[in-house]
Amino acid sequence: MRPIIGVIGGGQLARMMIPRAIELGFELRVLAETEGMSASLAATAVGDYTNVATVLEFARDVDVITFDHEHVPQHVLAALVEADVSVHPGPAPLAVAQDKILMRQELTRLGLPVPVWASVSTAAELDAFIADNGGRVIVKTPRGGYDGKGVRIVTAASDVADWFEAGDPLLAEELVSFTRELAQLAARRPSGEIALWPLVESIQQDGVCAEVIAPAPSLPAPLAQAAADIASTVAEKLGVTGVLAVELFETTDGTLLINELAMRPHNSGHWTMDGAVTSQFEQHLRAVLDLPLGATAARSPWTVMINVLGGPASGTIAERYPLALASQPAAKFHEYGKAPRPGRKVGHVNVSGDDLDDVMYRARAAAAILKD
Amino acid sequence: MRPIIGVIGGGQLARMMIPRAIELGFELRVLAETEGMSASLAATAVGDYTNVATVLEFARDVDVITFDHEHVPQHVLAALVEADVSVHPGPAPLAVAQDKILMRQELTRLGLPVPVWASVSTAAELDAFIADNGGRVIVKTPRGGYDGKGVRIVTAASDVADWFEAGDPLLAEELVSFTRELAQLAARRPSGEIALWPLVESIQQDGVCAEVIAPAPSLPAPLAQAAADIASTVAEKLGVTGVLAVELFETTDGTLLINELAMRPHNSGHWTMDGAVTSQFEQHLRAVLDLPLGATAARSPWTVMINVLGGPASGTIAERYPLALASQPAAKFHEYGKAPRPGRKVGHVNVSGDDLDDVMYRARAAAAILKD
Repeated sequence: MRPIIGVIGGGQLARMMIPRAIELGFELRVLAETEGMSASLAATAVGDYTNVATVLEFARDVDVITFDHEHVPQHVLAALVEADVSVHPGPAPLAVAQDKILMRQELTRLGLPVPVWASVSTAAELDAFIADNGGRVIVKTPRGGYDGKGVRIVTAASDVADWFEAGDPLLAEELVSFTRELAQLAARRPSGEIALWPLVESIQQDGVCAEVIAPAPSLPAPLAQAAADIASTVAEKLGVTGVLAVELFETTDGTLLINELAMRPHNSGHWTMDGAVTSQFEQHLRAVLDLPLGATAARSPWTVMINVLGGPASGTIAERYPLALASQPAAKFHEYGKAPRPGRKVGHVNVSGDDLDDVMYRARAAAAILKD
Repeated sequence: MRPIIGVIGGGQLARMMIPRAIELGFELRVLAETEGMSASLAATAVGDYTNVATVLEFARDVDVITFDHEHVPQHVLAALVEADVSVHPGPAPLAVAQDKILMRQELTRLGLPVPVWASVSTAAELDAFIADNGGRVIVKTPRGGYDGKGVRIVTAASDVADWFEAGDPLLAEELVSFTRELAQLAARRPSGEIALWPLVESIQQDGVCAEVIAPAPSLPAPLAQAAADIASTVAEKLGVTGVLAVELFETTDGTLLINELAMRPHNSGHWTMDGAVTSQFEQHLRAVLDLPLGATAARSPWTVMINVLGGPASGTIAERYPLALASQPAAKFHEYGKAPRPGRKVGHVNVSGDDLDDVMYRARAAAAILKD
């Protein structure tokens, strides 16, 4: 029998699992939030992922349940486990991904490097943290934030007065002095095997991943080893299964601090679709099925990924293809089937080659035609 | 609006178009012969491709009709053209692919190198051809043959007495003395652009493509140029659109002769899925939509493709994955969703790398686990 993977969530991450599932002969089923989502080709059900009955019905007959996002509530995950459904990643690691305060607690418990942080429940606590950390800090809502949402730089507790109204604690963090952001992508099988891709540099714009350079240029070998050790420790100690992305700061004093964790295929790994022997989407499917992991070596000296944010000001991406494909015949274009909207991730472009300047130029040129 | 491509035929070639259509944001619709075929994920219709009404209904609202195979009858193709449907490749080049005698006539008319051949309608004509060509020749049924079917080596007309009973002429060809078989893959847009992949060597077993080495080893540059010229001439002069495969003999005296033509993605091009910047399936979609063609360069010094013929003697390919994936973590596995049957193409494996011996060993090892 062919393995059946059920994916909760119908966004572009589920969509990008479909090609590899087809190629490997796996059956992919998707529980999409609404009709016409990114992964609609494989959407075998449409429904509310917070509804236990809906999710249990979807999970019938699948070999494993995995996710397009980390937002499935713990009581739904518990019901799946209770019903003997294989769930990867499982409820315990997902709880860490779902709550930024729990994430900081767990990383601290594991002795891993994180920014100075505090859970603050009152304005007074936050103002004290600000005073102790240079007068300017980051505040994050513990839940639901992504792509820069739920994150503010503040100089006084009054800057997040609206967030305190909800009554939940907030995460306060020192403003890290960093030279760049890095990301370590890994995958882990339930039976323990771990695979790590080369460490990459990610360039953010307005809190959203805009560009990725693989591998991270001018990287000291000890830093690469440190990143690999951090990701392996997180994956093992938290019991993460499937793909794990560890977003890191390279600080001005040359060390690493963990920024965020994602327990699913991640934007910082889109370069692997064309730039690595095994893409993060194939690896995720292999990992959650507890199949042996694929080789993670880069296929070219350099691969650059550029997100297409927002999409074209008028018309569709398809209407830009005649120009874009002619302009950059070696670029690999990925379109998510989503309507253009300012700032929205609607696609990405990968370009690989021997010369980083050339690769970067061509990737940016290709993406620019799709979004300007 | 996203482009819509209608594919007639639900076999593995249609199936392997799906991943690239998803990635580029094209809509792919498939008219499958029966339920549960290889391309069932994109099968939006099931019906008889020889029925004009069925095909016209399927072709409504698509931007272009293309094919998984070359067997759609000319009267059906004519009805599509009459209804102003864009059809690529068109009826005229497909007629050449559908009839091996017409193919030999056209290639001869274009001055391209072919084996000595004759259209024979009687046993006397065939015996005369045998006598003129060394006493041992090839006879082919002009229509419907593939993968070694409809081909016999004969020493007397009586060897094909059953074929003469049908009353149609047969194609007789000299038995070419060749050192190896090569294949030149090309793609052409309706507006004229042509792209050529590196020339490959194909190794046949029992008339079926078993292995492909890309590029063909120890290839004299003039021979590569000759193959490229032949494919370009065929594509231009016959008006082929989409992917074209030209199967060639490298003769013992160091020249090329055309063996067969295929006007669709072809087994000799499966290596491009992992070994070239643009795969033949992506290129076919781009070509039939008259979009600019992608780069065709190899991504590694060597890529070897091994067909999985027949599949495992017991159980399924998926049951072999734990061993196969662990054994060859850098191999790319492709499974067609077809039931195993002796000699049937049920999948293939691609391996790329710097050392041909190593690449060949690993590709064969990976494929062997799936089929033995």
